[in-house]
Amino acid sequence: MNMTDSLRDVIGGLEESWGIAIIGMDGILVEEQKKQGELDLQTLGAELCGLLKSADSVAGSIGAGGIIEIVTTAENYCVILRRVTDEYFMVLVIHPDGNLGKGRYLLRRAGSQVRSEL
Amino acid sequence: MNMTDSLRDVIGGLEESWGIAIIGMDGILVEEQKKQGELDLQTLGAELCGLLKSADSVAGSIGAGGIIEIVTTAENYCVILRRVTDEYFMVLVIHPDGNLGKGRYLLRRAGSQVRSEL
Repeated sequence: MNMTDSLRDVIGGLEESWGIAIIGMDGILVEEQKKQGELDLQTLGAELCGLLKSADSVAGSIGAGGIIEIVTTAENYCVILRRVTDEYFMVLVIHPDGNLGKGRYLLRRAGSQVRSEL
Repeated sequence: MNMTDSLRDVIGGLEESWGIAIIGMDGILVEEQKKQGELDLQTLGAELCGLLKSADSVAGSIGAGGIIEIVTTAENYCVILRRVTDEYFMVLVIHPDGNLGKGRYLLRRAGSQVRSEL
């Protein structure tokens, strides 16, 4: 299964999902799939890059080890960020009342699938 | 039920929990309860303050509305941050393999309990 198919699988497997992307730690989008045309995953990815670096700093300060996942729930979106390699992470955007557990599971599975291609 | 009892309830209700605190948006700890003596919730709280502000900036950039919750899973800790009012948030630290769903539920409930006292 290639990278694009892995992303499509996640979006297809979760009705309340709006978009998914693979982002580099430089904030540049590698690949995306979305259902909502107006969702700007490039801007989101660049912003999340900064968030992941802040979280790494928090984790460092308490000896928590490397960050694996950050789930942010806001009023209008839920964003699941998952680190795939040292250089890349994936982000999945779902409806705030969507099935968060399934989203996390599908993203973890997709992360394992795309890791070898990155 | 007072603030201290609400925090004790969460820690008592989740075996894999290590500590809980109420933190101001200025990074200052208001109240804490912990099982692990070496867990430095004051430092963690101050760092999380910065993370919450970064997440607010991310949410602002995509029109996501206010941040409600951030769940960060690292190798050695899982940290659940929940906004209680504009001025305060709560943080719960649990084992990375702990029951995340129950932690989120207990923290949400405690947030409702302490809100009137803040």
